[in-house]
Amino acid sequence: MCAPSVVETVRRDLSRREFVGAVAACAAAASMPAAAQQQSSVRLAKGFRDVVDLTHPFSASLPVYPGYKPIQIRPRSTISQNGYANNELTFDEHTGTHVDAPSHFVAGATSGDRLPVNRLIAPLVVVAIAERAAKDADTLVSVDDLLQWEKRHGRIPAGALVAMHAGWDARVADTARFLNRDTKGALHAPGFSEQAARFLVTERDISGVGVDTLSLDAGAAQKFVAHLAILGAGKYGVELMANLGRVPPSGATVIVGAPKHEGATGGPARVLALV
Amino acid sequence: MCAPSVVETVRRDLSRREFVGAVAACAAAASMPAAAQQQSSVRLAKGFRDVVDLTHPFSASLPVYPGYKPIQIRPRSTISQNGYANNELTFDEHTGTHVDAPSHFVAGATSGDRLPVNRLIAPLVVVAIAERAAKDADTLVSVDDLLQWEKRHGRIPAGALVAMHAGWDARVADTARFLNRDTKGALHAPGFSEQAARFLVTERDISGVGVDTLSLDAGAAQKFVAHLAILGAGKYGVELMANLGRVPPSGATVIVGAPKHEGATGGPARVLALV
Repeated sequence: MCAPSVVETVRRDLSRREFVGAVAACAAAASMPAAAQQQSSVRLAKGFRDVVDLTHPFSASLPVYPGYKPIQIRPRSTISQNGYANNELTFDEHTGTHVDAPSHFVAGATSGDRLPVNRLIAPLVVVAIAERAAKDADTLVSVDDLLQWEKRHGRIPAGALVAMHAGWDARVADTARFLNRDTKGALHAPGFSEQAARFLVTERDISGVGVDTLSLDAGAAQKFVAHLAILGAGKYGVELMANLGRVPPSGATVIVGAPKHEGATGGPARVLALV
Repeated sequence: MCAPSVVETVRRDLSRREFVGAVAACAAAASMPAAAQQQSSVRLAKGFRDVVDLTHPFSASLPVYPGYKPIQIRPRSTISQNGYANNELTFDEHTGTHVDAPSHFVAGATSGDRLPVNRLIAPLVVVAIAERAAKDADTLVSVDDLLQWEKRHGRIPAGALVAMHAGWDARVADTARFLNRDTKGALHAPGFSEQAARFLVTERDISGVGVDTLSLDAGAAQKFVAHLAILGAGKYGVELMANLGRVPPSGATVIVGAPKHEGATGGPARVLALV
């Protein structure tokens, strides 16, 4: 398997600021079609009672990761003037509740428009760390958290989206509290540990990883270790998820309405849970 | 019920060019929550074998309805220069495989971000008129087409998305053939007849209507009669759908990953069918 070696290389050498995309050689192995081949088909075991929206309303007031701009929504026609209404939208791909495609961090890897559709419908695993995160904003989802989840709910199902519920969606109306910067400007929010991310892509057959924060990595992480482990293995991420506290830790099915624009490194997605 | 009277008023008075949004008084009745209240809960009767992508790849080469601009995708960061890749997207809401919200044509009606999520997962009804459309590009889905479908497959299920498969998706790589303009510049493509659209919103409990063309209305229609019937009743539309020939006429479930930006009059959506 190529992914762990990519991650290892990247992990050793590259900091957040220094990262240079030199992992194209692994793009083939990191591509989703290979991952899809491993997958036993995902099925809904039965019907569902309810649909829970895991998507934040997408507006200019939503927090964005530093460097990205808020969405701009400009009316180009209106019912009163034109008979129909239309807006022009401008946004960075990595804003709103959105997908990270492997190509976000891995040159030549699968872009969002090419994620296999059967990976967009996935058993939803929710790892709840909100209580801990309320006391320690730098806490990480650990391998132990994943094993504890499995003790209660059984093995992480094939094709799962494994989502961290850190309780951060409750902060979404307050950008300062969401970003949670310290006096030096560094962000503080939970994320996946490198070990947990690597465990999920090497020891379990997941489709992707989700968070209710702005990043798969902790805010204070010095390197994009979780991103590189997940995306480097050809899996996808979902960031800025909403309402993970409203779905059960096990048994829901998530639908990731990934964007399909050409060459997407990611983009806003409608994410729905069937419970 | 307000919707039919709105449609009646609009139908009598307003041409495509002359349409003025003066139907705000009906906005409350045309809102989706009212529609949602009527709905018996939608369930997947059983699991599914496959996922069919009903979404076209979204690129600047995709046909757009006259007046809209093709999507622009501009790289703002790249892996080689920045360590991660991000694009800025700019597009009109009504481009790509996309949703029309009631607010596209009805002032004050439900916007795309407020469509009830249980209406986004719907039994998929495919009305196949491709053979007829190949000979007559101006053909319309009629009430008789709907009744013929029901003769074969039973009553249109509650909450359904009723989609016209005119075979237009096969033309998508050739914009001239897709738009199919005559010598005077008028478009020629199939759509829903006003009667069929009104039948669906008054005699059946649908969630919305889909087409594989650029418009719920026929290309040559002089008025937006199908739009006004469907959106005026608080239902949504899905335009420029792909692969409707790859799903069965009855029995599939469609997931409409409607956009959730604030005040959406519509927008690109990932649309998936579970078969």
